[in-house]
Amino acid sequence: MKRIGIADTSFARHDMAAAAIDELRKQGGGFTILRYTVPGIKDLAAGARILFDRGCDLVIALGMVGRQPVDKDCALAADFGLQMVQANLGKHILGVMVHEDEAADESELARLFDRRTREHAVNAYDLLFRPESIQARAGTGQREGFADAGPLRVRGR
Amino acid sequence: MKRIGIADTSFARHDMAAAAIDELRKQGGGFTILRYTVPGIKDLAAGARILFDRGCDLVIALGMVGRQPVDKDCALAADFGLQMVQANLGKHILGVMVHEDEAADESELARLFDRRTREHAVNAYDLLFRPESIQARAGTGQREGFADAGPLRVRGR
Amino acid sequence: MKRIGIADTSFARHDMAAAAIDELRKQGGGFTILRYTVPGIKDLAAGARILFDRGCDLVIALGMVGRQPVDKDCALAADFGLQMVQANLGKHILGVMVHEDEAADESELARLFDRRTREHAVNAYDLLFRPESIQARAGTGQREGFADAGPLRVRGR
Amino acid sequence: MKRIGIADTSFARHDMAAAAIDELRKQGGGFTILRYTVPGIKDLAAGARILFDRGCDLVIALGMVGRQPVDKDCALAADFGLQMVQANLGKHILGVMVHEDEAADESELARLFDRRTREHAVNAYDLLFRPESIQARAGTGQREGFADAGPLRVRGR
Amino acid sequence: MKRIGIADTSFARHDMAAAAIDELRKQGGGFTILRYTVPGIKDLAAGARILFDRGCDLVIALGMVGRQPVDKDCALAADFGLQMVQANLGKHILGVMVHEDEAADESELARLFDRRTREHAVNAYDLLFRPESIQARAGTGQREGFADAGPLRVRGR
Repeated sequence: MKRIGIADTSFARHDMAAAAIDELRKQGGGFTILRYTVPGIKDLAAGARILFDRGCDLVIALGMVGRQPVDKDCALAADFGLQMVQANLGKHILGVMVHEDEAADESELARLFDRRTREHAVNAYDLLFRPESIQARAGTGQREGFADAGPLRVRGR
Repeated sequence: MKRIGIADTSFARHDMAAAAIDELRKQGGGFTILRYTVPGIKDLAAGARILFDRGCDLVIALGMVGRQPVDKDCALAADFGLQMVQANLGKHILGVMVHEDEAADESELARLFDRRTREHAVNAYDLLFRPESIQARAGTGQREGFADAGPLRVRGR
Repeated sequence: MKRIGIADTSFARHDMAAAAIDELRKQGGGFTILRYTVPGIKDLAAGARILFDRGCDLVIALGMVGRQPVDKDCALAADFGLQMVQANLGKHILGVMVHEDEAADESELARLFDRRTREHAVNAYDLLFRPESIQARAGTGQREGFADAGPLRVRGR
Repeated sequence: MKRIGIADTSFARHDMAAAAIDELRKQGGGFTILRYTVPGIKDLAAGARILFDRGCDLVIALGMVGRQPVDKDCALAADFGLQMVQANLGKHILGVMVHEDEAADESELARLFDRRTREHAVNAYDLLFRPESIQARAGTGQREGFADAGPLRVRGR
Repeated sequence: MKRIGIADTSFARHDMAAAAIDELRKQGGGFTILRYTVPGIKDLAAGARILFDRGCDLVIALGMVGRQPVDKDCALAADFGLQMVQANLGKHILGVMVHEDEAADESELARLFDRRTREHAVNAYDLLFRPESIQARAGTGQREGFADAGPLRVRGR
């Protein structure tokens, strides 16, 4: 039995954890979920480390990046922390970040939150239970939350 | 009995520690406070590490970011150190940073210092004693120091 | 017998792993290959660490950097994680990154993916089996994926 | 008896170490000084680590940041290294950085070097021997090298 | 007997290692040299770590930074790795980086490569064998590769 950690924030404007948990359950069994909420994205690295210390095999870190320039620096700092935890422990933290300015209105943004989170939940499940599935998508231009870019279109093939 | 560390700076132009301590005490009991003052935000990571070495379970790191471009790089370096300590120890450092240019005048800035610090003190208390409270705010667009953004407004709901 | 890890992504738009494996096999024997696919470049550091934990002596990390400004920050975060794993373990991760905007069209981009990956596969083989070969190229302006810059042209020599 | 490390550089254009040592001695006793000179600011993290390995309790890292854009990146890299050493050891490195473009002429720049270094030497002494002194300055807008900003001026107080 | 590591790259357009080795030998004896060539500057941190694992007391890391914007980010990532290795081990890596756009033509650039490398080789020798020599240059505005800036010129002295 694997344990999947879900770290989310009170800063985000969408219940990303609910989407992640719902999608994980649709993929199959073999895991339990441990959820942990922190204030913002700069708290996700500590949250993820705490989830690993509680026995998680993989963590999905869910967050929103605001519109201000300072938010971009926060995202970089948050990413550094997430990289450090992964480098030290050798376990995946799948970061699902939605930028508040990625969509034209709030309804569209909500759909982006939902879709990107669900597609990364599938990635998480595959990394733990179906590595051959994600390997089958290698080099195919997958884009979580949007239509896939697809493999390069090469003339004369 | 938990121990909460408060790291603050002589660079900041507001007594953030007083606000944090006052608000923590309003939330309830079950903790003691250890306070430690450093010169500036780049000294907060060492200060937080020292507070953890003295037995703290969580540290609130209080600082101000000045108006100069160099201050933004300082903030990034400071954040990097704070991430590193958290990644290594698996304990939270709640960073409360107020940028000197976030408010139109000094009175307004003082109110922002006070409010943001207090709202993060509540987050700190919740992380240690009421994790269900912060989880109830997950995805609801909380903004410390300003009015909350709230969850996304989705058409047709 | 050495073990070479190949970490690639589902985000990339070209099957970089196939090119790397094909080129490694052309160089000679003495190694086995372990392949591991992750979603995107920010997942490569964890993937590389996992490959080292499974006994790899060197990892080739294959990824594509998208066109958006946010993709550049992702690349920095990814590089940071890759540096951290290498600094901690003292083993090479040869990062092969292709930027989506490096070529004028998709056919040319595909050729760049292929050539850069193959030239770094030779570097990987040399680091493990032919250190005198890569040392012979020291200071000669090698450019993986494009024509070499060559050594500086000095007047009067 | 405490041991204070002084790391300085041959790149800087002012003898910062002399000012630091003179000012530390004015503050009182109870410490010995270990001095170590490195080429530039990117060498200060290793220098500080070496001073800690030789028994120092705190290090003052003295450096100058040049006028070129590349110098700003060097400063960021140097700061990262200094943060890492502090995060790993839980001991302070007080970074005293003077930017070559902070003053209008060389005489004024020399005064800035001297004053900032001395004010940080006082901070160093206080952190080790008079923590109540630096705590008394918390939130008061201290500025090393220039006139203090002071606490925020709030209307109606 | 000390051991000095020389890490260089096949990306650089000048044989920096030859200049470093020649200059080190001119300074005196008491050391052996271990050389290790990697593809590019992002591989130097792993290369330096490997040289330390083989018994080196200090490493000189020799590299060139290209003209493209992406090369600047590579330099930052490379520096992060070099800082990490130094912070973890407490040993110096003297980074000698030449930017391809620092000189007007290739002959001048070659002279810059040669001079900067040699001046840092002297720094390396001094750090290991003549610490009093580098300390005598503290605060004197040394510039490796160009004329020294010298100490600040102060009016009325």
